[in-house]
Amino acid sequence: MSVKERYIVGVDLGGTNIVAGAMPLDGSREIAMRTAPTLADGGADSVVKRIAGMIEDVIAQTSAETGAERSDFLGVGIGSPGPLDREKGIVIVTPNLGWKNFPLRDEISKRVNLEASLDNDANCATLGEFWCGAAVGGRNVIGMTLGTGIGGGLILDGKLYHGSSDAAGEIGHTTIDSTGRLCKCGNYGCLEAYASGPAIAERAREALRGDEGESILGGLVDGDYYRITAQTVYEASRRGDTIAREVVRETARLLGAGVSNLINIFNPDVVVLAGGVTQAGDALFEPLRAEVRRRAFKPAVDACRIVPGALPFSAGVVGAIATFKMKTLGEL
Amino acid sequence: MSVKERYIVGVDLGGTNIVAGAMPLDGSREIAMRTAPTLADGGADSVVKRIAGMIEDVIAQTSAETGAERSDFLGVGIGSPGPLDREKGIVIVTPNLGWKNFPLRDEISKRVNLEASLDNDANCATLGEFWCGAAVGGRNVIGMTLGTGIGGGLILDGKLYHGSSDAAGEIGHTTIDSTGRLCKCGNYGCLEAYASGPAIAERAREALRGDEGESILGGLVDGDYYRITAQTVYEASRRGDTIAREVVRETARLLGAGVSNLINIFNPDVVVLAGGVTQAGDALFEPLRAEVRRRAFKPAVDACRIVPGALPFSAGVVGAIATFKMKTLGEL
Repeated sequence: MSVKERYIVGVDLGGTNIVAGAMPLDGSREIAMRTAPTLADGGADSVVKRIAGMIEDVIAQTSAETGAERSDFLGVGIGSPGPLDREKGIVIVTPNLGWKNFPLRDEISKRVNLEASLDNDANCATLGEFWCGAAVGGRNVIGMTLGTGIGGGLILDGKLYHGSSDAAGEIGHTTIDSTGRLCKCGNYGCLEAYASGPAIAERAREALRGDEGESILGGLVDGDYYRITAQTVYEASRRGDTIAREVVRETARLLGAGVSNLINIFNPDVVVLAGGVTQAGDALFEPLRAEVRRRAFKPAVDACRIVPGALPFSAGVVGAIATFKMKTLGEL
Repeated sequence: MSVKERYIVGVDLGGTNIVAGAMPLDGSREIAMRTAPTLADGGADSVVKRIAGMIEDVIAQTSAETGAERSDFLGVGIGSPGPLDREKGIVIVTPNLGWKNFPLRDEISKRVNLEASLDNDANCATLGEFWCGAAVGGRNVIGMTLGTGIGGGLILDGKLYHGSSDAAGEIGHTTIDSTGRLCKCGNYGCLEAYASGPAIAERAREALRGDEGESILGGLVDGDYYRITAQTVYEASRRGDTIAREVVRETARLLGAGVSNLINIFNPDVVVLAGGVTQAGDALFEPLRAEVRRRAFKPAVDACRIVPGALPFSAGVVGAIATFKMKTLGEL
């Protein structure tokens, strides 16, 4: 008689979308992955209800595919924007969702009648890449998610590092130019103020000022410069646009300074970069790696690979499942 | 019959001085602490001989004071400038000592016929403050030594963090201004290029240029501006010198940016600053703490105290003893 497989459900809650799915305990495959809009404007209760519905759908589909029974599902791992109180399962505040001190873990747990765990979304994404993605085999892994903001997760000596009050990993808010651009966090010269998606777009708009005629960027957005995104900039650069190329080159330089800081501090074996901005691929990674080689200490650079995430859609869900497994079984 | 106390000897090897001493296993007191010049020009063999002599003297004095026998000494913990290969006990390269791939641990061990361990000097200094100094009670501790350079040590979840190839903790070589001052490491805008002792002195000389008559700094060094040190700058500032005050204020701002980065990344409970530059005391720490409050995330700032080291002379020795204890007994 074969040992029955057991499953964990994962939820990755974002400001725009929710992603959910399941995996068997050994992390060997993703099952029933799906996404739905968060619709945060409807309030916390309606978001919790939508998440609970997705969890039930994931369980139903997983059961149908594998023959699992409800008792084969150990619980639910949840990744959420923070800051959080992991111990209590509380979302302390998330500007994107408009929540304050919301007991997300227990609200979901009650509704689906399963144990649940809560961790930071950027931590989950990094842990997902570590368990099943681009950072498999690493021991010290720094994860960065470059999107609307820049999130960070730290896996040190094989374990998620949370810091003294669950606030560690704010890589996006490290200063690379102490008298530089004002960041949304109120500080000056944060990495996020240069290399997040919106920051790249803003820097492109600044570079265009007075030289609009010399660039194809305007044409790509039908003359509405506020529709320029990081993707537009990379597209124009790929087509040879000089101004866009300079913005891309400068982005790699700035990100290179930020990643070099992390390599000099952590001496990691893997830095994983994920998120929309990294869709630029080699156009970003090659000059970024070159800049890191120029800036960081050679022994630390030699010990480290800088790679794109391998789970662009599911890293957060896979990592949320991994945090639940770690919490319940004590190991991955 | 009382249980016999056992002892560990510690050695802190620096480019200028060697410090050595002993402690009982419980770290309750320092015994037979002493210092001698390194005299690195004499070559590695003569330095090892001098260290071995100091170890014998420490053992003799400790025995005389406590009645301990030679068999009561478990071994020797050694702190050395790096980079190192801890596993093999090898100093890979130290510009200040002129060594390359030198098997320091085994050379000392052979000569005194005791087991030995080797770790980075900045790691040892941080571990010393964690075990017996200003960071007692902390769980996540960032140590910075501000002197000729800026060294760093990381204690995360209660343990020294070394990184993937023993190269972690290069806090002095994190960029705070990516197009800024050239650093000795070849990179631009490193914290060390602004806030090490020599960098503070250099910034003061630059600030004086053309305004020499308006400052007392020249008088403090008999007109020989190359004798200005960080101490001179703080002395002039204390006496109300406007130019020196501005350099001190700017130093606190720059260090504040560096420390804020560490707080946003690590969410530590303690940041310990030690070394010559911190002798300025409140004149440094008060504006530094204010700058950190302006820059870093409030929950992380609230969780963290920023304090001067409590063991200015012996932190490295105490920490070297602690690394030997950790290695041999598995716990502090």
